[in-house]
Amino acid sequence: MKEKEVNNTKMLKAGYCFTSTNNNLRSVLFQLRPKLDNRGNGVSPIYRSQVFYQSTTVLDKLYPRHDNFSERHIGPGAEEKRTMLDFLGIRDMKELVTKSVPGNILLDRDLKLDKPLGELELMERLYKMAAKNHVWRSYIGLGYYNTYTPHTIQRNIFENPGWTTQYTPYQAELAQGRLESLLNYQTMICDMTGLKIANASLLDEATAAAEAMGLCYRHNKRRKFYIDNKCHPQSIGVVETRASALGIEIERIDWKEMDLSKRDVSGVLLQYPNTSGAVEDYTNLVENAHHNGTLVVCATDLLALTILRPPGEFDIDIAVGSSQRFGIPLGYGGPHAGFFAVKEQFMRLMPGRMVGVTRDASGGDAYRLALQTREQHIRRDKATSNICTAQALLANMAAMYAVYHGPKGLRHIGERVHNATLILAEGVKKAGHQLQTDLFFDTIRFIPQNGQAEIVQRANEKEINLCYQSDGQVGISLDETVEREDLADLLHVVGCTQTMEEIAEELGTQPVNSINNTAFHRTSEYLTHKVFNRYHSETNIVRYMKQLENKDLSLVHSMIPLGSCTMKLNSTTEMMPCSWKEFANIHPFVPLEHAQGYKEMFEELERDLCEITGYDKISLQPNSGAQGEYAGLRAIMAYLHSKGETQRSVCLIPVSAHGTNPASAQMAGMKIQPINVDKNGAVDMKHLTAMAEKYSDTLACLMVTYPSTNGVFDNGIREICDLIHDKGGQVYLDGANMNAQVGICRPGDYGSDVSHLNLHKTFCIPHGGGGPGMGPIGVKQHLAPYLPTHPVIPPYGTTGPEAKSFGVVSAAPFGSSAILPISWGYIKMMGADGLRHASEVAILNANYMSKRLKGHYKTLYKNENGFVAHEFIIDCREFKKTANIEVMDIAKRLQDYAIRKEIHDIETGKSDSRMNPLKMSPHSQAVIMSSNWDRPYSREVAAYPVAYVKPETKFWPSVSRIDDIYGDQNLVCTCPPMESYESPFVDPLKDRKTAAASSG
Amino acid sequence: MKEKEVNNTKMLKAGYCFTSTNNNLRSVLFQLRPKLDNRGNGVSPIYRSQVFYQSTTVLDKLYPRHDNFSERHIGPGAEEKRTMLDFLGIRDMKELVTKSVPGNILLDRDLKLDKPLGELELMERLYKMAAKNHVWRSYIGLGYYNTYTPHTIQRNIFENPGWTTQYTPYQAELAQGRLESLLNYQTMICDMTGLKIANASLLDEATAAAEAMGLCYRHNKRRKFYIDNKCHPQSIGVVETRASALGIEIERIDWKEMDLSKRDVSGVLLQYPNTSGAVEDYTNLVENAHHNGTLVVCATDLLALTILRPPGEFDIDIAVGSSQRFGIPLGYGGPHAGFFAVKEQFMRLMPGRMVGVTRDASGGDAYRLALQTREQHIRRDKATSNICTAQALLANMAAMYAVYHGPKGLRHIGERVHNATLILAEGVKKAGHQLQTDLFFDTIRFIPQNGQAEIVQRANEKEINLCYQSDGQVGISLDETVEREDLADLLHVVGCTQTMEEIAEELGTQPVNSINNTAFHRTSEYLTHKVFNRYHSETNIVRYMKQLENKDLSLVHSMIPLGSCTMKLNSTTEMMPCSWKEFANIHPFVPLEHAQGYKEMFEELERDLCEITGYDKISLQPNSGAQGEYAGLRAIMAYLHSKGETQRSVCLIPVSAHGTNPASAQMAGMKIQPINVDKNGAVDMKHLTAMAEKYSDTLACLMVTYPSTNGVFDNGIREICDLIHDKGGQVYLDGANMNAQVGICRPGDYGSDVSHLNLHKTFCIPHGGGGPGMGPIGVKQHLAPYLPTHPVIPPYGTTGPEAKSFGVVSAAPFGSSAILPISWGYIKMMGADGLRHASEVAILNANYMSKRLKGHYKTLYKNENGFVAHEFIIDCREFKKTANIEVMDIAKRLQDYAIRKEIHDIETGKSDSRMNPLKMSPHSQAVIMSSNWDRPYSREVAAYPVAYVKPETKFWPSVSRIDDIYGDQNLVCTCPPMESYESPFVDPLKDRKTAAASSG
Repeated sequence: MKEKEVNNTKMLKAGYCFTSTNNNLRSVLFQLRPKLDNRGNGVSPIYRSQVFYQSTTVLDKLYPRHDNFSERHIGPGAEEKRTMLDFLGIRDMKELVTKSVPGNILLDRDLKLDKPLGELELMERLYKMAAKNHVWRSYIGLGYYNTYTPHTIQRNIFENPGWTTQYTPYQAELAQGRLESLLNYQTMICDMTGLKIANASLLDEATAAAEAMGLCYRHNKRRKFYIDNKCHPQSIGVVETRASALGIEIERIDWKEMDLSKRDVSGVLLQYPNTSGAVEDYTNLVENAHHNGTLVVCATDLLALTILRPPGEFDIDIAVGSSQRFGIPLGYGGPHAGFFAVKEQFMRLMPGRMVGVTRDASGGDAYRLALQTREQHIRRDKATSNICTAQALLANMAAMYAVYHGPKGLRHIGERVHNATLILAEGVKKAGHQLQTDLFFDTIRFIPQNGQAEIVQRANEKEINLCYQSDGQVGISLDETVEREDLADLLHVVGCTQTMEEIAEELGTQPVNSINNTAFHRTSEYLTHKVFNRYHSETNIVRYMKQLENKDLSLVHSMIPLGSCTMKLNSTTEMMPCSWKEFANIHPFVPLEHAQGYKEMFEELERDLCEITGYDKISLQPNSGAQGEYAGLRAIMAYLHSKGETQRSVCLIPVSAHGTNPASAQMAGMKIQPINVDKNGAVDMKHLTAMAEKYSDTLACLMVTYPSTNGVFDNGIREICDLIHDKGGQVYLDGANMNAQVGICRPGDYGSDVSHLNLHKTFCIPHGGGGPGMGPIGVKQHLAPYLPTHPVIPPYGTTGPEAKSFGVVSAAPFGSSAILPISWGYIKMMGADGLRHASEVAILNANYMSKRLKGHYKTLYKNENGFVAHEFIIDCREFKKTANIEVMDIAKRLQDYAIRKEIHDIETGKSDSRMNPLKMSPHSQAVIMSSNWDRPYSREVAAYPVAYVKPETKFWPSVSRIDDIYGDQNLVCTCPPMESYESPFVDPLKDRKTAAASSG
Repeated sequence: MKEKEVNNTKMLKAGYCFTSTNNNLRSVLFQLRPKLDNRGNGVSPIYRSQVFYQSTTVLDKLYPRHDNFSERHIGPGAEEKRTMLDFLGIRDMKELVTKSVPGNILLDRDLKLDKPLGELELMERLYKMAAKNHVWRSYIGLGYYNTYTPHTIQRNIFENPGWTTQYTPYQAELAQGRLESLLNYQTMICDMTGLKIANASLLDEATAAAEAMGLCYRHNKRRKFYIDNKCHPQSIGVVETRASALGIEIERIDWKEMDLSKRDVSGVLLQYPNTSGAVEDYTNLVENAHHNGTLVVCATDLLALTILRPPGEFDIDIAVGSSQRFGIPLGYGGPHAGFFAVKEQFMRLMPGRMVGVTRDASGGDAYRLALQTREQHIRRDKATSNICTAQALLANMAAMYAVYHGPKGLRHIGERVHNATLILAEGVKKAGHQLQTDLFFDTIRFIPQNGQAEIVQRANEKEINLCYQSDGQVGISLDETVEREDLADLLHVVGCTQTMEEIAEELGTQPVNSINNTAFHRTSEYLTHKVFNRYHSETNIVRYMKQLENKDLSLVHSMIPLGSCTMKLNSTTEMMPCSWKEFANIHPFVPLEHAQGYKEMFEELERDLCEITGYDKISLQPNSGAQGEYAGLRAIMAYLHSKGETQRSVCLIPVSAHGTNPASAQMAGMKIQPINVDKNGAVDMKHLTAMAEKYSDTLACLMVTYPSTNGVFDNGIREICDLIHDKGGQVYLDGANMNAQVGICRPGDYGSDVSHLNLHKTFCIPHGGGGPGMGPIGVKQHLAPYLPTHPVIPPYGTTGPEAKSFGVVSAAPFGSSAILPISWGYIKMMGADGLRHASEVAILNANYMSKRLKGHYKTLYKNENGFVAHEFIIDCREFKKTANIEVMDIAKRLQDYAIRKEIHDIETGKSDSRMNPLKMSPHSQAVIMSSNWDRPYSREVAAYPVAYVKPETKFWPSVSRIDDIYGDQNLVCTCPPMESYESPFVDPLKDRKTAAASSG
């Protein structure tokens, strides 16, 4: 299920705790049965007989495979599973599955996957795979640059489950650390771009540009959009693809030739500095645009803006870009955080998540996600975008990079890169080549005097990749990792015979071509907030990162309360290769033969995902679930159009669907027809049949989530698919709940044509506190020719005569490649039996919990056998009447622990209906410890409602209940001038001075 | 200074906070001046002008070196340093040094070190260095085995500063996590060996064996000790070396030929299984020994004991060994945790640290270091041993490995390894070789039928190292990482033509030679405690590790209260290579040409350390400071003896010296003459002169710490050295305070002959919660020939005609090689200027703090300029009279924060002299949050005495004040049957069952 039911439902969806491993289950159980004795009995769950692998040979018995990863991954042991099955009155997993899943979709064989690898075997395979990626020095640019991830950030954020396993911060009281960091990110983006409002990141620069185009269109409804032809090619591609479904006409043109006078242009997209490296003066264009009601979108570069006049200062409306080069490894294309900043007036049109400041119930400042009402779970197809997730982990890393370096450090890096480029440019000229511009930041283009070949040869000898253009030009983009040795090699490659010392002497300390000597020189300050000015020693930044980490509940503490996605264990073995330089330090546009390790992994992953889903072909490009939905729907449309059925554009969507579905369909140019749901939570077959009939000429597809968001395997799914096909439509099956199906049934078998797979749900990529995600799509053969391609590096199979791709959806050809080892490794280590068993246990957990809760809470939807899928919804509506308790109260009190009995106490009048532990929850330390305790219940009831919640292990919400409404009414979404950054290790000397200064 | 003043001094040594980076300084300052405004002023400390590197060329200005690591390492920025200097009335660092350090020892030039490397440059160098280590598969054995460190343990303990940077757990209230884990370790050792009492680890197996010999001698005072000649060669070497200085006669002999009837044998050392792999039946020998008053020491193997009858069951007295193969990488020899277990009756003779259970002030159970009175800081030369540190980090990892696998998992691993060995042995026989024993666990030895050469050739082809004996035998030791492919390769190497499948079929599922079919089969249970039976899924163990981590104060939270060692930043860049397989997966006894990367690093480190200290030669072998002392003193003795001055054995030691000094001197066979200290804390020159005169014929050396443990650079150090030399003695300068000297003065210049260098203090190896440490020694040229060698792999320069080594002090030739990249990297990145500046800042911090405290606390010792060194002692004795406050009260209240004003309140009668925040400190959450609050001060005063201590960032002691005396009187040092392991994620199903069972 998706991540957004929490705040707008009257029912409490308990699915979050059942789709995961059993550890989470345990926690919930305690909440419900606090009296349960919890002493262990010393039985090890791991060697619980060979559940999966029957030993057949003497060797197998004598010298078995070493470890069984799936037993480390799946929490419950044989005994626990037996107990749960007994409680359900069920014989075995087979019976459980039979009772929960319709017989006519069951897979009647094992998945054909490789024999599972042990953790060490996996590492050995990965070493070999990694060695097939060639880590050349790449100065290709085009939006991707080498960067030095400070090792302390790499280790303490990227490699730390305390930062990677957090869920999207919907429960803000338990996520103040991450929210503070995301606010730092927003502040950084605003400061660097010179705009007032920024969101907490988008997927990448290209999709950010496409979202900007969408904003322009929503703003002025004009259907023409200009793109300067010196924008990055992948940005142009993604914008064009998006536009084509929205009926927006794109014109790719030199910015100097843009004609805005007809007042028919929605917006223009510029790149600053442009893809060739040139810094252009857009001032007049912007003025002209505004004069004609046209908005200006400026794609820009954060490092350049350390010394370059920010686009906000020449009045552009929207700035987009990538924060990759602020410490995020190239990763063969991602994940990175795209950024998006706007003028204040466009705030409510802005897509994506935004963090804002509000107050809590105690009156203190607190952070939370702001303006949620813009998003799809509220506005559905009227939302600002279909985007759900952000790239929170990467945004946090980029923000921490800025915190670590501070404004002076960043300026230092920017100047150093720029000066190195000045030296290189001088060398290029001295070597006789024709430099294309004199005003640049870090990127130069030149026409080699004797053609590209000799440059290529010398570069290859040095194992250096440059940007070779088909028109014969050569591009070189420098970055912070360029050491003198590298620059010397580059001078050699371009054929310059002078040394860099000699060139520097000639240039002098104030080179004439330096940006510093032009009107483009940045004069405004940035990152002046103290958070960017106090954590520059490694000790300080480690403490700051730890301080934030420890405010946030993550999987290292317990299950995540009210994060509803599948929260799977993200095993260290799966995560490790993501840090290896062979995976991390590869530019997405290197020649394919340099990334053969990735190719091997992609091919294996695709093969495995096809086998798991029953599809024929996978596209790895979509880098989020919503992107996957969009790509899948576009493939459907392209297929229908290629058949000449251009009139087909109706998309049927059950009303129970995630808001993302209609939002994606709308973006794909479809018309949405909602389908009713019957009282059992299933698709209303009558209504569906009627609508399918009604739209039989124009039906494009049905979007359906399976098992449904109501937590049931709908019996009619096969029939539904047949019906849609019968009417000439396609079936899009939302793969969000694939976790309940792996090894049990396959969408491709029972009638679906396309699904996205949330690798960050079912396939173990950690949530990262709200991204990165990955949303590859699987399709049946007939849709394969229409899958996404890429303008720079077309993925395998998307070129050639059969390929009829609808376009490109992500900046990078293979999406967020760098996190694919996680899913690949998960599948390799689990094997067919392990994967199926994980699904079975998810279903077992959910059914066990549902039955356990019987008598206390009503499970809203079950199938005719009384069984649920891998999650279920409990009905909390009556509590409003009986105890004045709403779902939100339960959600908040879950942060403290315990529930039903406390509701009961209100119902029976034992507790006050306003002043009770639920209404007043969550309880922070500050509240509990105050001498002033005036509540009708005790401190102990508030903080330690049951015996096993102990002071030394309790996880504390760091603030009291958040006031969302106040925050949205008084929006602050950059770092506030408050004392929230104080810590015991701040500098008293400085502080004293400031105090003196401010009092003087 | 050393780590032991805390509990036995009436003065509060504040040095801990001044020898580190400034972050610590800040914390202390807050404690003293709580009203100080602490708002920052936004000034970045990092780009504080080019303090060190004056740019000279245009290129340097235009394109400077990228980063300055020393600015990341040293906390205070230019402005802060300026403020501190101003406060002291000092112009610059040079003047500070001149006022603090005697002019006649100052180094008048810069250190000649390489130009400092940036962090990325360092990584590049490390990649190249790492590539020179050949990671062959090594089945050499001899006490070192391949192992799979569970990745989750690697990442969440070994690579996590929350586990690595903790100090020795003297302040138990802030270290309950680590203490629990060490108790798990002790429990594991007791269970596996079958003995009642174990300590919290020793340095390695060989030194543990030597300590065991020492215990035997202390017990029965007999001067003869037998070693079975099938013990590991390095153990034999270390025991022999130790014995030679104590006047103990060692006889190396087959155990069957030991004659104990003369009742003159102190103890015997056996290996089980022995170094050749054979399992011998020692039962009769043990009986005979006990009959004759001889103790039996049994070196053993933890993995073997998973299926092998434990030595405790055949009544041995002491078990020693290594816990390396429980998940600790080979690391080219270390660090690993040696273990030591004894019968209950020998508990108080046992060396090393031991964790015990006691109660806290609230009556709850709590852990702390037990029986401290056995240690050197109390008993000095009468101590059980000179050992101070343990290998806490490695012991914790090994314990967590056992927690992760549990008893069934460990038995599974043991059986699998054993069965693989049975198959291999069968293959060896089939290939026609002569197997040396039929009863073995994991190691076989055989005489190849056609000689070693063909085996060697085939092994080398496969890149496999085996154990080649000079007598022609070949040894192979298997381990948990051996996969089928590896076993197949080994069968090929030994020339067996049958497959492992065929051999397995012949052996059947119950092979006749299996230990399971013999009387050696283990029948007793082990690791039955629940902590070893509930954390087997990765999710669970991650939560358990995090839960323990978060109970412990470490450098990621703040300075460490009352850890008195130099707590330096342990930068991630320095730590990273320790995890690389090229450094981690190298057996210590591989051919030297396989470890050329290490060789290069050792040589550079030695060169740099020589330059820093003024010595001529370094031995990297001692793996702790105390080991270094011992090795240095032995080198002195060997030198004196080789000159024929065998009568020289008196060691002069100032009474202010660490207890380790006399303990080491005693172990080196010296007689200790204490030297008085004058009222300024300096060596009493009169007394020294008199004693040097008195013992001029027998004087061996002076041991002196510089700057002194009283926190002052003694003016007379050069004179003192001259005096000792004049009387024919040598000077041993304890390097514990080298942190104040690096770049400022060099012991080798002003008269010292030998020092140990605590790399875990001055050179950034993290403390690990009480180890690993490293204590290499530097010597002047005349002592170089006497440095430690090694019986298996003699270190470079310790063989040949000039070498006259006194013996071997550690199990591994180069000590704990795997952590040397940390110190190497630190020096390479800091460079000469950075290193000197770190020393200057340490001195600046201390002097600043001393002056700040003036008027509140009296600094006990200063030099004649009124300056201290890098630390100082404040006099707290009068508080006992004025406020009934002891140093312990201050130490405990520091855990909560704040101090002097609270003492003042007692002095003035404002606070009660018994019921006050100091006496009742520290304050745990449980205490503060209780509804029952009956103290005369408020909850807020207790928990948040000052405004900047906030609920959301406060670090909490997890228990109230620990009762040491109760614990020592009621000693429990294995996991107690208590509920302390409860956590919210334990398994309710099991628990219910247990409850039912126990009530039934």
